[in-house]
Order: sequence, then structure tokens, then C-alpha cells
Amino acid sequence: MTSVRTISSRDNPLLARVRRLAQDGNAYRRVGQVWLEGDHLCAALRARGRPAAQALVAASAWEQGGALHELAGWAQAVAVVDDALFAAASGLESPAKIGFLIDAPAGGMVQPDAHGVVLDRVQDAGNVGSILRSAAALGATQVLALKGTASLWSPKVLRAGMGAHFALNLVEGLDEAALEALAVPLVATLPHAGATLREAALPPRCAWVLGHEGQGVSPALQSRCTLAVRIPQPGGEESLNVAAAAAICLYESAARVAQ
Amino acid sequence: MTSVRTISSRDNPLLARVRRLAQDGNAYRRVGQVWLEGDHLCAALRARGRPAAQALVAASAWEQGGALHELAGWAQAVAVVDDALFAAASGLESPAKIGFLIDAPAGGMVQPDAHGVVLDRVQDAGNVGSILRSAAALGATQVLALKGTASLWSPKVLRAGMGAHFALNLVEGLDEAALEALAVPLVATLPHAGATLREAALPPRCAWVLGHEGQGVSPALQSRCTLAVRIPQPGGEESLNVAAAAAICLYESAARVAQ
Repeated sequence: MTSVRTISSRDNPLLARVRRLAQDGNAYRRVGQVWLEGDHLCAALRARGRPAAQALVAASAWEQGGALHELAGWAQAVAVVDDALFAAASGLESPAKIGFLIDAPAGGMVQPDAHGVVLDRVQDAGNVGSILRSAAALGATQVLALKGTASLWSPKVLRAGMGAHFALNLVEGLDEAALEALAVPLVATLPHAGATLREAALPPRCAWVLGHEGQGVSPALQSRCTLAVRIPQPGGEESLNVAAAAAICLYESAARVAQ
Repeated sequence: MTSVRTISSRDNPLLARVRRLAQDGNAYRRVGQVWLEGDHLCAALRARGRPAAQALVAASAWEQGGALHELAGWAQAVAVVDDALFAAASGLESPAKIGFLIDAPAGGMVQPDAHGVVLDRVQDAGNVGSILRSAAALGATQVLALKGTASLWSPKVLRAGMGAHFALNLVEGLDEAALEALAVPLVATLPHAGATLREAALPPRCAWVLGHEGQGVSPALQSRCTLAVRIPQPGGEESLNVAAAAAICLYESAARVAQ
């Protein structure tokens, strides 16, 4: 049975922890827990059968029962929180009515054969989340984040990822040397590469290397890549956003496999 | 010659107008001017030879001269603004040192033969900006926004667009009936369409229809479409962000033309 208690004080330690996790994208690394806000993320966790230590539910939603009640029951414990306190703890402009606290995922192992993505200092949380979402949708199974990339389990990345986190093997804080464990080739997109993405002899599985929004992929990492391809951009000087480039590369891989 | 004056009062009417435009994404429709913040956007405007009525430059940057000085000279008039006042007017977490005020683009005409995009109530400004950026990079020349889509010239859309606005014919606030002016076919992506994007007989030019983040393309608009295609998503229940889907569709069109 799920235990249920009520929180009505702003100073409650559980609520203080949620506030910290919701408002500081790196805090999960020190706290050891991750905050999933909103029914979509909580349901995505449940759909993968992953455990949740604690649910927080806004009092108004708890009283209504129904689907949110049932979703909250997935967690080992439920805390019902005064609506205004829930909203104050939330990091969202439109606060949700439910959230889960889960244990921060342990640093995973690099899976050598996985088709996936390497993130080289991608800065923007929205971009990182969108890349995770595209990766999961388009059949990739692993995302490796090098040091300097936005924290994968921050609330902003989770929100943009829309549940993709639970479908992927995620490893972050990696040094470049850790990529030597990969058995699949590293492939980068470079503006002056000879082969276009469409023409290139892409391996069926690879690790797409995506770089910093301003600086692109580091020269050292470029030199580790087996293949570089170019996305033709007839629009001339305009360039693609890194998440858009990721979607295109992952799509091209998926379309080849499907054929 | 460009005229130069100094602003040192928070209550200066020009500064108040910039503050309003920077902080309210819809204000340009009433004010009749658009605020372009940051050297990238200002340089993109200049690269297209488009006029700027007014430049605002932070005093510290103005004193340094150099490239920012020269860029400011593109505008008909320059106002040098105390750094703290510039920062307070800016909508950015890291305020820029330069911005242009330009006249709000007049409602353009739908170009019947243009390859491009139709936005059906796309809500998120970051998504809309990313779609404009992908459109410009991948050779589209027109973006038509139906009523209910995020305002195209808001600061957030401009920032995500990275200058794409100046490379495209943009028309917003349209009713669906206005799409009858298009001579190119409307093409939508639907999860249950029979043909995959890769297999489909795509016309060389079309209008890719992209829908609301939650609801997708409205049924009425779907029924106007000549063709519907599916982006295969081997990841199962995970779905693509609308800006990622846009990048993939525009890429597929561009790759066909290149072949």
C-alpha cells in the first residue's frame, strides 16, 4: 500500500528538496534524486516500469481522484501538498498538479553496439531534450554526453524530452576517451564534408556526434570520427539548429534501416 | 550621416518602447515596430540590405568602437544607452550590447508558387523560430502562419530564428481560406498515413503543414491536404517535436531536389 501524508508548511524538508531540484538544473547530482513534474513524465516513467520513491500531488487534484490519483499510486509514498505550496515549489510557469521524486539514475555504462548520439558540449537544455526525444522516436537507444553538456536530468531537459529519458541508455559527464569503448563508428556532420548525408555510405548503426551550438564539434573529437557528412543547405548562409540537425541525421539512419 | 544621441533616463520614451517590445512578444503588432536584440540579428538584417530606423547601443560597447560601432551605423539613428538601462530594457538573461528597432513588416502577400511551410497554431516560440531557421537553411522561401500561431516577430521567435526571418516571405494571422491562393500542394505528416516520407511521391515544391504541439493539424486543414505522409518512428510510443518533424520534412524535400 502507498502511504499518504499531507504537507501544509513551506518549510517541510521534502518540499524544500523539490523546490531546490525544480529550480536548479544541476542539483540532482548533489541531492541524488530527480524531480519529474507533470503527468506526462510521471506516466512515461510508469510505462517503463521504473520505480518512483515519492509522489507529490496538489491537494485540489488529489481530492478529485481519478487518473491522477491512480498515477500517484505508482509511487511508494504520496504527499498531498497545498496547491499554492506546490506551485511555489514548481519551476514551471503553469505548475503541474503532480510530480515524482525518483532516485537519480546511477552513471550507466557505455553500450558498445548501441545506435545513438554523442553530445559534445551542447549547451541549451531545450536542444538537449529535443535531441533525446528525436533519438528515442527514431530508434536510437543511447545518448552519451561529454563533459560540458547541459545536465541530462535537469527539469528543462526532462520537459523537452517528453519521456525519452526512460527509453534510452543515458551516460553523462564523459571524457572523450570513454568513446573508445564504442564499437559503432562515430559520424559527424561538418559543413565542408565531401559526402552529403544522402549519398554517404552510412553504417546501419553509428554514434551521431553533435556539437556545441556556437563552436560545433571540437577538432579533437572530429579527428576521432570515422565519417563526416554534410547536410546540404541551399539557403546559403543560414544554418541549422543542432536539434534540427540531429533529427535529420537520426531520420536518415532510420530511413535506411527501414528500406 | 547617422545621428547619435545619449539616453540616460529610464523614462526616456524610446527606451520605454524598447522595454515594452522586448518583454511582450505581441506588442509589435500595436507599436508598429520590431526589436532585434543582439549583433547576430542586427547583422542578419544588414546582410539582407533591410533598413533599420534606430540602433540602441550599450555605452560600454559604444566607447570601444570597432565592429559594433560599424554595425550601429547601419541604422538611421543611434542612441547610446547607459549599460544598466539597456540591460533593464532587454528581455534576455544575458543582455546584448546592441539592438535595432525596425518598422514592423507589413502583412505580406501569399506567394502561390513558393516552397515552404504552413504553421497551424504552433504554440511554442522556440519551435516556431527553429522551424523558420530550418526553412531558410533548407531552401524554403515562405512561412505562412495561421491564426493562433505564436507571433512570428516576437523576440523569442526572432532569437530562435537566428536571422531566418529576413530570408523568408512571412505572412501571419491567416485564415485557412487564405491557403487557397497557394498553387503548390499542401502536405501533412500524420502518424497513420499510408506512405512513408521516404517512399512518398513528393512534389518538388510544396507547403509542409505543421500543427499544434498537442493537437496536431486540425481535421479541417488535413482535409485540404493533397498528400499525407508518415515519418517512421521505430521508437514506438515516443513522438517527434514539431520543429524536429519540420526539419526532417524540409530535409527530405531538399535532398530530392539536389538529386
